[in-house]
Amino acid sequence: MKELTTDHTSQQFNNELETLRQHFLTMGGVVEEQVQDSLQAFLDSNGSLAQDVKNKDSTVNELDGIIDEECTRILAKRQPAAGDLRMILSISKAVSELERIGDEAKKIANLTMQLIDEGESPRGYVEINRIGTMVSRMIHDTLDAYARLDIDAAIKVAKQDRTVDMEYKTALRSLVTYMMEDPRSITRVFHVIWILRSLERIGDHTRHVCQHLIFLVKGIDVRHMSMDKIDAQVKTQPE
Amino acid sequence: MKELTTDHTSQQFNNELETLRQHFLTMGGVVEEQVQDSLQAFLDSNGSLAQDVKNKDSTVNELDGIIDEECTRILAKRQPAAGDLRMILSISKAVSELERIGDEAKKIANLTMQLIDEGESPRGYVEINRIGTMVSRMIHDTLDAYARLDIDAAIKVAKQDRTVDMEYKTALRSLVTYMMEDPRSITRVFHVIWILRSLERIGDHTRHVCQHLIFLVKGIDVRHMSMDKIDAQVKTQPE
Repeated sequence: MKELTTDHTSQQFNNELETLRQHFLTMGGVVEEQVQDSLQAFLDSNGSLAQDVKNKDSTVNELDGIIDEECTRILAKRQPAAGDLRMILSISKAVSELERIGDEAKKIANLTMQLIDEGESPRGYVEINRIGTMVSRMIHDTLDAYARLDIDAAIKVAKQDRTVDMEYKTALRSLVTYMMEDPRSITRVFHVIWILRSLERIGDHTRHVCQHLIFLVKGIDVRHMSMDKIDAQVKTQPE
Repeated sequence: MKELTTDHTSQQFNNELETLRQHFLTMGGVVEEQVQDSLQAFLDSNGSLAQDVKNKDSTVNELDGIIDEECTRILAKRQPAAGDLRMILSISKAVSELERIGDEAKKIANLTMQLIDEGESPRGYVEINRIGTMVSRMIHDTLDAYARLDIDAAIKVAKQDRTVDMEYKTALRSLVTYMMEDPRSITRVFHVIWILRSLERIGDHTRHVCQHLIFLVKGIDVRHMSMDKIDAQVKTQPE
């Protein structure tokens, strides 16, 4: 594990940064659970699990607010520099991504409840399961990478988003064909498409979290670079 | 116009904040143009205008990077407090929303090009025109509100997002009905639906920019409040 923080005159400051980091990882854990549960709720047609996902939204919003306040307070009081400043800015941005991942999980939960109300759902189970498992794994690995400041892991996860995008497009094509063959299914298939869309968005947000981690560790802004360029940049950049 | 910045010992610091604000408004202007042009390109089936929208993406990304660097530099060098700190944090977050609005405009441009390639497009013109005009106006008014730090205008714009969401749902329902009646149109109608979806997202991002402005001026985090609650909070909060 790398040590990013510079020597602080104040132990109190160290504690504040550590608390911030812990809150971020806690929020990540809740969001990860939301995504996994929303997926499981869909696969099992489990309405009460879907409701659980929705209920967790208030916890996520609360943590989002707490973390943002902590960032502002540390910036005002401690006037951090270098690695500490980057850590705060990185968490401040990454937390918005986590919050939106939670929002997408909530959307999946809502769609699941609608599908349960309307009776059995057509197609899409296999695709949703595959893509959902992929993005759940991505979130898990991203939080691990944040906890260990592991930039190689972050790059690996960010690259997986490409596969998610490809899988999403393939799934969409097959659902469109299915709708053409059975137009009466269109409304219900649409629910499945919105779920896929949410999973694809979760992949995007997770990639952004990884990019913020790369900024934290390396101090380079990689948001508008291709993954190959990021890889090359990171390798030539000193720690 | 309200004066937010506290007295600075350094004129140089004032200049830096003003430059940051100007860059933010410049980036907003480019993004506003992208949205308007992507809409016009769709309505006129104008492929070269759609290409213009895509070309502007690099300008937006560049400004995004510049603004982020400026925020980091000012935070490290000037150690701002109170209103100045809020301004930097607010701009730092709002700029990510602008960047995503630009991304959605680029998606609309891409979809427009595909529709042009595939021949005349079915339905959806009226709806896209209506919702597109609404969100273009919202962006314009948001940037005005930022320039004047006008919180009442920001609340007004944020509330309009509700109307966008309702219009979007209505449009979607009518397109689903249309697809059921004419299943051969499904693929092309999907392009129209993705454009509507992008416009709806642009409305969301614009609302978030407004919420960051309210945080800037009032120092309260309104991201997870209903619009009515925001209204009430802002009215009871001293300037």
